[in-house]
Parts: sequence; C-alpha cells; structure tokens
Amino acid sequence: MSIADLDATRFLTDFHHVATFGATANDGVDRQAATAEDKLSRDWFATFAAERDWELRVDGIGNMFALIEFVPGAPYVLIGSHLDSQPLGGRFDGAYGVIAALHAAEQVATRVAEQGGHAQFNLGVVNWFNEEGGRFPPSIMGSSVFAGLMDEQEMLQVRDLSGVSVAEALDAIGYRGNDPRPAVAGYAEIHIEQGRILEREGIDLGAVDYSWYTQKLDIEVVGEQSHTGATAMADRHDALVAASKVVLLVHDVTKKFVAEDGTGEDVIVSSVGRFTVEPNSPIVVARRVHLVADLRSAAPDVVAAARASLLDDIAAIAKAHDITINVRDFDVRDIQRFPQAGVELTEKVAADRGLSVRPIRTMAGHDSVPMNRIVPTVMMFIPSVDGVSHCEREFSTDDDMVKGLAALSNVAWEMVQGALAEAAA
Amino acid sequence: MSIADLDATRFLTDFHHVATFGATANDGVDRQAATAEDKLSRDWFATFAAERDWELRVDGIGNMFALIEFVPGAPYVLIGSHLDSQPLGGRFDGAYGVIAALHAAEQVATRVAEQGGHAQFNLGVVNWFNEEGGRFPPSIMGSSVFAGLMDEQEMLQVRDLSGVSVAEALDAIGYRGNDPRPAVAGYAEIHIEQGRILEREGIDLGAVDYSWYTQKLDIEVVGEQSHTGATAMADRHDALVAASKVVLLVHDVTKKFVAEDGTGEDVIVSSVGRFTVEPNSPIVVARRVHLVADLRSAAPDVVAAARASLLDDIAAIAKAHDITINVRDFDVRDIQRFPQAGVELTEKVAADRGLSVRPIRTMAGHDSVPMNRIVPTVMMFIPSVDGVSHCEREFSTDDDMVKGLAALSNVAWEMVQGALAEAAA
Repeated sequence: MSIADLDATRFLTDFHHVATFGATANDGVDRQAATAEDKLSRDWFATFAAERDWELRVDGIGNMFALIEFVPGAPYVLIGSHLDSQPLGGRFDGAYGVIAALHAAEQVATRVAEQGGHAQFNLGVVNWFNEEGGRFPPSIMGSSVFAGLMDEQEMLQVRDLSGVSVAEALDAIGYRGNDPRPAVAGYAEIHIEQGRILEREGIDLGAVDYSWYTQKLDIEVVGEQSHTGATAMADRHDALVAASKVVLLVHDVTKKFVAEDGTGEDVIVSSVGRFTVEPNSPIVVARRVHLVADLRSAAPDVVAAARASLLDDIAAIAKAHDITINVRDFDVRDIQRFPQAGVELTEKVAADRGLSVRPIRTMAGHDSVPMNRIVPTVMMFIPSVDGVSHCEREFSTDDDMVKGLAALSNVAWEMVQGALAEAAA
Repeated sequence: MSIADLDATRFLTDFHHVATFGATANDGVDRQAATAEDKLSRDWFATFAAERDWELRVDGIGNMFALIEFVPGAPYVLIGSHLDSQPLGGRFDGAYGVIAALHAAEQVATRVAEQGGHAQFNLGVVNWFNEEGGRFPPSIMGSSVFAGLMDEQEMLQVRDLSGVSVAEALDAIGYRGNDPRPAVAGYAEIHIEQGRILEREGIDLGAVDYSWYTQKLDIEVVGEQSHTGATAMADRHDALVAASKVVLLVHDVTKKFVAEDGTGEDVIVSSVGRFTVEPNSPIVVARRVHLVADLRSAAPDVVAAARASLLDDIAAIAKAHDITINVRDFDVRDIQRFPQAGVELTEKVAADRGLSVRPIRTMAGHDSVPMNRIVPTVMMFIPSVDGVSHCEREFSTDDDMVKGLAALSNVAWEMVQGALAEAAA
C-alpha cells in the first residue's frame, strides 16, 4: 500500500468512526450542539490532538483548536469546520471538513518535518461551535463570535426550546473553556457542496468565489383562539389557516424569478423551516403561529423584490382574515466574496493533484463566511450525491472525500508558506 | 334584598372568585387539567362541600363528587360540569356549570329540608376531570371513564407534551382518589352555548336535543429533510408546504356544503388545531408534519362526503409533492339524542321561571354526552356573547347566568323527585 493509500485509509477509518457518534437508524447522525453526542465527537477530536502532542485550546464559546507550532510566536493558519449536526442530519456536513483538516494538518506537519520548507505561519485545526443553529439559533455561532460579528456574552445566554442556555449546555459537557484564542493569519475549509452542480458536471472540486445574499423574515400571525366545534366558520380568525397561506406564498414567490441563462437553476430559493402553533390543541382554533421564512439569492435585488412581493401578499391575507400579521427582517447576510487569490490557489492545487475544478457559489452559510471577514479565506467543495443535505440520506463518496483531503492538505501547506499572506493587505 | 337576589349575589360572588384561579391578563383563565391552577379550583370545590357537611369523594381518574343524601341508599342525580380550561381559555366554559350546580344543589337541599317533597333520589355535584383534553387528549376523559367508554388504566398512562402522565399529574396535586363511584340515576348539566344562536334570537335557554356527529383525522405528512439554502427547489420534498395545503383543504371543504334552509348556518364545521413540525429548525426543510383535522356536522353523511373529498385531494397533494401522507380516522362520535322527556322538562321549568327556551343542538362535545349513554340526561345552554369560546374573550352576562342557575335548580329538584325516572327504562 502506498503512503497515499495508507493516508486515505486512515482518514476514511476516522471519518466513518466519527459517524458512529450520534448515529441514527438511517445512516445519518443527530449530534446537535453541546449535546452528549456532540461531546463524544469533541472528546475524539481532543484525543486526536493529544496523541500527536498538539496543543488543545477551548475558548469561551466552545470552539476547539488543535495547534501545531512551526514558527514560535507566529500567527496560525486555521483549517477546519464543525462537528455538530442538524437533528437527524447527515454524517458529512461539517464533520468531513474537520476530520479532513486533522489529517491534512498531520500531513503538513510531516512534510514540514521531512522537507523543511519555509513556514511563515503555524497551523491549527478548528472545530467551530454550533454551526448548525438547530438547537441554538442563530447558526454559524462559534466562528461568528471568533470573528467579532456576534457578542459572546449574548450568545451564551441563547436558550434552546427547553430553556437550557448555551452556557449551561457547554458547562454540562465540559466544553466552556477560557483559553486564549489563537492569533490567525488565514483560514481554509472544505465542505460537501449540498447541491448537485459538481455531481452533474462530473467535477472533483469547487473553488467557492462568493456566498449568496440571504435574509430571514420573522413572521407572527395573530388570530383569535376559539372552539373548533362550536364556533361558526365565519366567526373564526384562524391563525393556522392564514399562516398556511403564508407558507405557500413563501414557497411560490421563487417562481416569479427565472434564470436568464436558460439553465433552469434557481435564481432564488425560499423556505419556511420553523413553524410553531399556539395553543396547539386538537379542539382549539389556533390563536398564534410563529414562523421563520428564509430567502436566498445571488442577487440582493431579487431578494428585495421577493420580500416586497411577500409583504404585499401577506398584508392582503391579514386583511382577508381580519387578523394581524407582524413581519420583521432579521439575519440579513450580504454577499461575501472570497479572495480571488484563494480561488486561484485552489485551481493551482487542483492542477497539481490532477483534479478537475470550477468556481462555484455557496447558497448555504459556512464558518468560512465570517472568517473571510477577518483573514484571507479559502473555501472548497466536494460533490454531494443527489444534492441533498441536512438529512440522513446526505452522501459523498469515499473517493471524492479523499480527493478533497489531498486538495486541503496542499492548500494548508501553501498557506503555511505564506501563499495568501499578501491577500491580507 | 329578596332571597332570590341574595342567592344570585352569592352565586355570582363565587363564580367571579373561581375565575381568579389561573386568571390571565385578558379576563380569561388558564387552568389546564391537573395543574397547580386546577388544584386551586378543586380545593375551592372541596371546601364548598366541607362547609356544608356534604360527603366528598374523588375517584381513580380525579372526578370529584360532592354528595347530599336525602334517601339513604338511593342512587344519585348528578349535576355539574368541569373546572378545567383550555390554555388561555375562557372563565365560563365548564366552570359556570359546576358553580351553578353547587348553588343549585344547596337550593334543592334547603327546599327538601323546608318543604319535604318526595325525594326518590339523592343529589350530587360533580367536577369532571379533564373535559378539555388540551393537555391530555382525548377530551371528555373523566366522564367517559365514569360511563365506561374509556379505560381508566389506559387514560392514567396518557402523557402530556412534556412526558408527564395523567397518573403522575393527579398524584402531584393530590387528586388521584380511590373512593367508590356513586350509583347514578340521572345527570343534568348547564353550559354556555359557545355559538350565537340564543344571543341572535334573544332566547334565555337552550334545551339540547342532540349532539353533532364528529370525527377526527390523524394526518402524518412525511417529506424529506434538506437544507433550506443549498437544496434546489425542485429537489425538495417539503412536508410543511404539503401540510399547509392540507390545512387549506380541510378549511375549504366546508364550502361544498350549503344549508338548504337558506339560514346560512354552517352545515359542517372543520378545523386543524394541532400541527407539529419536525425538525422545526429555521434552516432545515421540514421532514414531517403531524396534524389533527376535526370534522363536525348534524348529518353523518355530510361528514362522510367531506372526508371522502379530503382523502381524494390529499392523495393528489401527496402525488404532486412525491411525499407520503398517512391518514387515519379516530375519535368518531356518533350523533347522540338526549331524551325527549329531558327536553320537555327543560321547557316546563323555563315556563315555570318565565324564561324563553328553544331546542338546540350542540356542535361541541360535553360531559353530558357520555353520561347520556348510561342515564337519562338533561343538557341546557345559556347565551354566549358573540358566540366565541375557548378564548379569553368568551363571555356570558351575569343576568343570563342567574337565569340558568334558576333553571338548573328547578331541573335538579324535579329529577330528585323522579321526573326522568321513567326515561331510564
């Protein structure tokens, strides 16, 4: 077995082992942030670092850093992603990026030891806290706190639906640290695409050039509680009926925008994922529904147009049902462009490794987005089968994962040598 | 002040006092079954009985009986309703019937002591457990167990959404008893109409002649969880979008049936009150929605036709969205006719008291429905303002409540004398 094959086998063994933490019946994982299952994957990460004598740090929001020093006192290139998952999520989303980063870091450390090279920076692997946000919204929490985009104290007070705070949950699993955050010189992350562009085109690697514009709408539908049997249909102000119409509006608004390039690809995607009914009793007409709509597009003006259309149609529903519907904008995330030098680095590394590559945008948020605000950042995708994610059926092949690991290893090596140092200027 | 005025004042004082147990900000009550608030109203009921030396019994499902013996060893005429409420419910639903029954019983006891009469039966006041079913479905639990229509052991194991069982909740408030159930000869209940027929026609009293046919549909919409941003719209199987269409179908199916008498009154009413989304995460397309639809009509064939129409339309939605929708019939309750002799007794009593009266059907379930299965039962309504119920805005006037108390007092007096004894044959 060649060294490359051996490395691949060791990586895949670790990958499939981590997938047993919080494993679900249908090949997925349920490893939400700061749960007992999340702790298992964190303990494994800590052990991986300890076995290699890498320094482990845990910061105040539960981010974990495994650090390798090449140049005493120099800042770190960080590589990584997140080990937490959605409820009944897939075993690739996030975990692939962390485990690939651990193995890439080991390869870089070996290469530095064997070949020397001219390391300008140190190297660290990061497991970001709560990228998913399913238990504790908002998502991308740990990396956003790290980048100074969210307030640590405020985030520690966020509570899940059963009233447990982030601080309490992290304390409960022993992962609220107080170690100093490493000084950082650059960031690289590899992730599954979660769409089907790479699969359809048969391409090994995506070099992410920008993230879509996204925003959410917090929508509160306030009707009047009444008896499901005794109250005449005409006398009801049913919050659930009105809210159901809002769900369909949010879904259908995307049809108003069609790709001009004739590809049939979505110009905008939308959804309602959170939807809570009160009092949720079988024989009571609902008084209130709280829902969150999500709009995403490459074009901010498309999101603005969809939002305006929705506000008009929602106002009409409120009037027709004689109820109140409050709509509030939140979690607006502007388009983020990744440095062109990083896209070119991915293309160079792909060429070196004999991999096909194309530029690609991300419609999903990632830890790389806030990191890109503070340091030169490289974001790469590998193909997803059928383009599904955030579900147990999420899948990427071993072969594609191993190719991605090779690319990440080379990117980390180049960045440690200072490949993107000038992009920081 | 006349004795009648004094009686009315004492009743209203008690009624408005009980409304303070679990009082909400907007004049309603939140006194769900076997909660601390329910305990307050139960303690008050027990004290009312103890102060009059009435025997108090609590049975294995938490029903409370306050018993007055006129004829040693004879069975009891029971009068009453329930003190539990919906979440953010009204202060009249159920509570009016129990408090009126306590005062009616005291009046009958006084009358028996003063006038003698020819009592054939004893008299008891009942506070049925969990009529509402908002916390512990199904509704009408205590009286259904009493009537042998539901199994006590099974009902004690029913759990609320936080996992607490009926048995545990009753133990926690000290109201799981083991007293023998009283032998029963008849039942009478007075309740707010929860519709607007009496108010519209300016009539004091409704003599309930039958209950509507009702059934529920348990509907499970099974889609596929996916990423709200990264998954293309065409690749999604969004359970929430499909379930929203089901809600609108259930709502709109009633429009297919129009009253032939031109009154514009509903021929059928429908609703979805319970609707639960999984995983209910803002950035995950829903994999599953569980909802409960409720259909009610005076005509069983109308319910059957509506159900058939819904099943066809739901199958079409499942096909269009390429998802699974499972539909199961449950909680089917046939039309129940109350004894004609009881309707006539209400009419006689109304005439004696100078009250206007009309026959009326009930679209809502009541404890009187299972009781009517085992003993001759009288059900009466007083007017509801605006016809709204199961909400804080629910309202009936003091004057209408006092008129209803007079009617109940006379009905109880007549039934204790054996007025409906022959209807039992």
